[in-house]
Amino acid sequence: MANTSSVSIRRARRDDVRTIVEMLADDPLGSAREKLEDPLPRSYFQAFEEVDRDPSFNLVVAEDADGKVVGCLQLCIMPGLSSQGASRGLIEDVRVARHCRSRGIGEQLVQWAVRQARAKGCVLVELLTHHSRVDAQRFYERLGFACSHIGMTRRF
Amino acid sequence: MANTSSVSIRRARRDDVRTIVEMLADDPLGSAREKLEDPLPRSYFQAFEEVDRDPSFNLVVAEDADGKVVGCLQLCIMPGLSSQGASRGLIEDVRVARHCRSRGIGEQLVQWAVRQARAKGCVLVELLTHHSRVDAQRFYERLGFACSHIGMTRRF
Repeated sequence: MANTSSVSIRRARRDDVRTIVEMLADDPLGSAREKLEDPLPRSYFQAFEEVDRDPSFNLVVAEDADGKVVGCLQLCIMPGLSSQGASRGLIEDVRVARHCRSRGIGEQLVQWAVRQARAKGCVLVELLTHHSRVDAQRFYERLGFACSHIGMTRRF
Repeated sequence: MANTSSVSIRRARRDDVRTIVEMLADDPLGSAREKLEDPLPRSYFQAFEEVDRDPSFNLVVAEDADGKVVGCLQLCIMPGLSSQGASRGLIEDVRVARHCRSRGIGEQLVQWAVRQARAKGCVLVELLTHHSRVDAQRFYERLGFACSHIGMTRRF
């Protein structure tokens, strides 16, 4: 990749919540779902506390050379009986700040998640991506993911 | 449904592990992945303990009128920042014993998971089902799920 920005991946902190929500909201599907008020609705911080206190959930951010948060990802490590009791990793909420796209930051986030899942003994990493996100599907295929499953959802 | 068997759904116990693994193994995709030895590999029991001690993971079984385990399902409740900090439910490892299929047992398991996810404040329940499981996709559509996403996997 010609124009790659090297980022460091670290655990998200409470003071990253606003930047993360801004990235979640700056998205064709996410814009209708988020509430980017000032101050942010308390529900975001409550969710952050829940994620932060359970080691099964890993919310991380990508920080650029200036210490600015330019991406995020959540990895859930799920124990389960199938595949001889192996855990599985689920990747969610991958976002890269609009002005930093196409610089390999999403790839560094996903590769971090894959390494982390492997280190935790997972046999598989999985994710759901909306049918309309064709670029995302190409991106994940490039990183070794296969379109092997149908992702089914029931929204309340 | 003409021939419905009413089952009770309860939390799985350590002494259900063998029956659950038998159901996981009795499946076109699962048969190659499981190891149905006697005694079972310890990894199954280690995974059970991990699931059992974390309230985010709910491994349940369906018990028929005679107290026999005839189905299983795992529901993961995942906190996260997106959708204003709402949790999501992930359904996994849904199985019904071969001799008990087409009696509405899978439906009762999935409806339990949907109710549980709702009660825990989820805005969404999701699952991945292999492309080849066309019957499963029809089943979930009947229960209000949409084939809205692509399920991508990377197996190690």
